[in-house]
Amino acid sequence: METDKKLVLGLFGFGVVGEGVYSVLGKTPSLEATVRKVCIKNIGKKRNAPKELFTDQADVLLNDPEINVIVEMIDDADAAFRIVSTAMNNGKHVVSASKKMIAEHLPELLELQRSNKVSFLYEAACCASIPVIRNLEEYYDNDLLHSIHAVVNGSTNFILTRIFEDKLPFKDALLLAQQLGFAESNPTLDVEGYDALNKWSFLLTHAYGILPGRERLVFTGIQNVNELDAGVAAKKDCVIRLTAFAKKLNNGKVAAFVLPKFVKQDDLLAFVKNEYNGVVVESSFADKQFFYGKGAGSYPTASAVLSDISALRYHYKYEYKKLYYHTPGELSNDFYLKVYVGFTEWKQVPKNDFESIEEWHSNDRVNYLVGIIHFDKLRKSTWWKEDGVSLIVDADPLIESLDVTRLKKRSLELAGYNG
Amino acid sequence: METDKKLVLGLFGFGVVGEGVYSVLGKTPSLEATVRKVCIKNIGKKRNAPKELFTDQADVLLNDPEINVIVEMIDDADAAFRIVSTAMNNGKHVVSASKKMIAEHLPELLELQRSNKVSFLYEAACCASIPVIRNLEEYYDNDLLHSIHAVVNGSTNFILTRIFEDKLPFKDALLLAQQLGFAESNPTLDVEGYDALNKWSFLLTHAYGILPGRERLVFTGIQNVNELDAGVAAKKDCVIRLTAFAKKLNNGKVAAFVLPKFVKQDDLLAFVKNEYNGVVVESSFADKQFFYGKGAGSYPTASAVLSDISALRYHYKYEYKKLYYHTPGELSNDFYLKVYVGFTEWKQVPKNDFESIEEWHSNDRVNYLVGIIHFDKLRKSTWWKEDGVSLIVDADPLIESLDVTRLKKRSLELAGYNG
Repeated sequence: METDKKLVLGLFGFGVVGEGVYSVLGKTPSLEATVRKVCIKNIGKKRNAPKELFTDQADVLLNDPEINVIVEMIDDADAAFRIVSTAMNNGKHVVSASKKMIAEHLPELLELQRSNKVSFLYEAACCASIPVIRNLEEYYDNDLLHSIHAVVNGSTNFILTRIFEDKLPFKDALLLAQQLGFAESNPTLDVEGYDALNKWSFLLTHAYGILPGRERLVFTGIQNVNELDAGVAAKKDCVIRLTAFAKKLNNGKVAAFVLPKFVKQDDLLAFVKNEYNGVVVESSFADKQFFYGKGAGSYPTASAVLSDISALRYHYKYEYKKLYYHTPGELSNDFYLKVYVGFTEWKQVPKNDFESIEEWHSNDRVNYLVGIIHFDKLRKSTWWKEDGVSLIVDADPLIESLDVTRLKKRSLELAGYNG
Repeated sequence: METDKKLVLGLFGFGVVGEGVYSVLGKTPSLEATVRKVCIKNIGKKRNAPKELFTDQADVLLNDPEINVIVEMIDDADAAFRIVSTAMNNGKHVVSASKKMIAEHLPELLELQRSNKVSFLYEAACCASIPVIRNLEEYYDNDLLHSIHAVVNGSTNFILTRIFEDKLPFKDALLLAQQLGFAESNPTLDVEGYDALNKWSFLLTHAYGILPGRERLVFTGIQNVNELDAGVAAKKDCVIRLTAFAKKLNNGKVAAFVLPKFVKQDDLLAFVKNEYNGVVVESSFADKQFFYGKGAGSYPTASAVLSDISALRYHYKYEYKKLYYHTPGELSNDFYLKVYVGFTEWKQVPKNDFESIEEWHSNDRVNYLVGIIHFDKLRKSTWWKEDGVSLIVDADPLIESLDVTRLKKRSLELAGYNG
């Protein structure tokens, strides 16, 4: 039960995360991990570490037989994949923080782990310091996972919180986020939901054994959410969160998406404000669990990377148990969603696509409806991502089957909704 | 990096937890763990498992060389310690759920782990399904832990929630908890704080390397908290929680206690209602993290036991890094607490023990004061545990040093408070 041998590390990247990891490793002899070499792009730049530690030649690390662990902390997803795959092919274990790279290459990364019998750990890639991957792998291995819903992107959550609490227009809230360092100067990846989608695509693998491929997941960001939507949310005693959602349906398949969502004030995710992340897991054994913390930033990320390094001392590896040992989960598009749609003009909304419309409001400032739509119709259309249209999922959105007769009647009662 | 050998288990106890563990193991071949024998007290009782699996002879399991893991899930702390220590001396790894036993015997259990080079895992013993021990060991190993505050007892939390939300008197709330199965028929262990104290004593070891011994920790339960206190809490925009608290002081030592506490409505622990548990960890790297879930019950407990069994496949063991590899933490009694004291008669409160009294109220129904007291004075006295006195720590209770001049003036301004 003792560890076999010392970890000898090669680091890629020496930004704030890389330097943080290096510094803590030096101060923590109990980790029994030494940094042998660090690969960086700009070899001329002055660093807080001995000069002889650095190289700009990836192969110096990747071909060094003494190095048994590669820690990859760079921004470029394509370069990251080349590094990580070569490292595994050379028999090295890998710790990575590159969510985009993992989302893009998961099937190949699974095969690399299997064929080379190495560990590939990436807790830092989702919710940074929150140990969500490991808990999904270990704690919910033997337990029936009913659902997960999560706030996995801190930038958008900061913006939504400011829109809601300070009644700011979207663009002012974004500017504030950028000024405070919670959003990139090019915020598209975060704001339009790509970052959350990336994380969700591999969390679904750990949670349900689903290898969805990002292109199969329905998603959007918060680019069209505005302060009027926030006002409607407040009247419904809700806040708005960009929610990554997955739930096992009665038919055994899994409903999953990344969409803005009304969240009741007493829901755990309403507690997740500003740049924080949170994950709510419901299962039959452990019941409801909630994990909350900082989902980004150099220190929380470094903290997660260090935990993965520490876990390698115990030969820890993800087993992807739900994928390999159970019947892998399957995505379903056959269910209904109750959604709110804010819009500027009626013609933007294909009202006939809705099974029923339960509410509609229109005046010189605010136009919205609340209705039930089949998920597959949403999936196959794009009107709800257009400028001026904000689709927000209801607080209790999922309807597995509809009583159509009842709905038709209700819709008729709301006569005139099509203006 | 593969696992070495199959886990062959001997279980002690076949109550709801034991049976749950047995049943899931049978359905989860990926765990590669088989149950070889189960030791129970009453061999005559009918069980949902083959008869030949059971014995009432502990030695049959403890001396079986094929069994490499003992899973101990019994109520009797003394018997549990005999089983666990014999198992470790016989070279077996142990998974246990007995918090009282662990709190009573931790130094001996540490020595047994060291001398026999075996794992002893007990995630189920604190907050059941919430993976708090493992996260304190792994995630906060390399990270400076500022503070932990936690709700670790579901019974008392259920009672406090009902007192607060339904304005029930204490005894009615307790009765309700008993009817719903959230409190034992003899509720002393929970209600008077012993259970929380037990858990906190070994969590402090994982968090700060402190081996306090329960007798050195200041604690009480909620036996004297009543609906009048809840009314005061509500006016202060707070709820009341039985809080286990630890914080690193500026002098490097640790302040720790288990006491009822006012908790602001927007604090994470206010979210922890009814039978749930929650742990808030603040550190320099990962910042603030919150873990929330069911802290008791057969399924959550079984879920944690299964996770420990699963971890043994990776040779996981607690390293008690803060105890062995860092300078172990030390408890401090040299700080001040701001406290609320509800009482029935003035003479119950030694007013001269207080550095200052900031508020006092007295009418025919409600008597209370809010003041600052040195922790060591509290530690050395018992008046605050007497019938009719409810001591509740302020929402922001900890004062490391006092400006005495300012305080004296403030106290004089409140002339007449001593009736």
